[in-house]
Amino acid sequence: MHRSRLKVVLFDTPAEDAQAGVDFWSAALGGDTGKTVTSEDPYGRVGYVRNAVDAMVQRTDSEPRIHVDIETDDLEAEVSRLEKLGAERVEFVEQWWVMKAPSGHIFCVVPIQSNDFPNGANQWD
Amino acid sequence: MHRSRLKVVLFDTPAEDAQAGVDFWSAALGGDTGKTVTSEDPYGRVGYVRNAVDAMVQRTDSEPRIHVDIETDDLEAEVSRLEKLGAERVEFVEQWWVMKAPSGHIFCVVPIQSNDFPNGANQWD
Repeated sequence: MHRSRLKVVLFDTPAEDAQAGVDFWSAALGGDTGKTVTSEDPYGRVGYVRNAVDAMVQRTDSEPRIHVDIETDDLEAEVSRLEKLGAERVEFVEQWWVMKAPSGHIFCVVPIQSNDFPNGANQWD
Repeated sequence: MHRSRLKVVLFDTPAEDAQAGVDFWSAALGGDTGKTVTSEDPYGRVGYVRNAVDAMVQRTDSEPRIHVDIETDDLEAEVSRLEKLGAERVEFVEQWWVMKAPSGHIFCVVPIQSNDFPNGANQWD
């Protein structure tokens, strides 16, 4: 008998953009801030997820990759907040926004999908 | 005021490998099984994470990408279990195994890193 569980979601980021990645994702996800990543200390924790997060496979036409969704009760306000943090709108699809982070990662901002929202959500002015 | 939270981690997988991705990741993470993904129904939920999951930025020499870590109390048993599911060992680094899933995704299997382990972990025979 042994045990295992999903532990970390890592935004692997090229060295030249790594600090921008920490700064953006920590502000986007409401996690720790102020961490400087270096070649000797390459990890920056940007969030600690205690509420329910789904892991899904999505059939795509892209190369294998992983992306995250951010769920919100105000799509336009959240997209605007993330734009101010340096993200760009890529495309509106059905009912969500595809965005690109300063770290180079593509992600989505989606309307509420969970019965237990806003459990575990950050609150933004 | 509005609220947001991290909602989904999606293993974006090219169409030809998408079903293999669902089958592997649902078995790897102990999530739902039996879902068939198609062009009309491209999503397959493979896990539902209620315990703590960290979100981190990692400074790398790669293109921007996201990867997941699976935490375990028996590294060799977990790597062997995942090999039987179709994953391949890529490299042993410091104290963890880098692996490649049948869906094409690179991920890591790491020894216990959390004080609350095995809270939320799957148990395997």
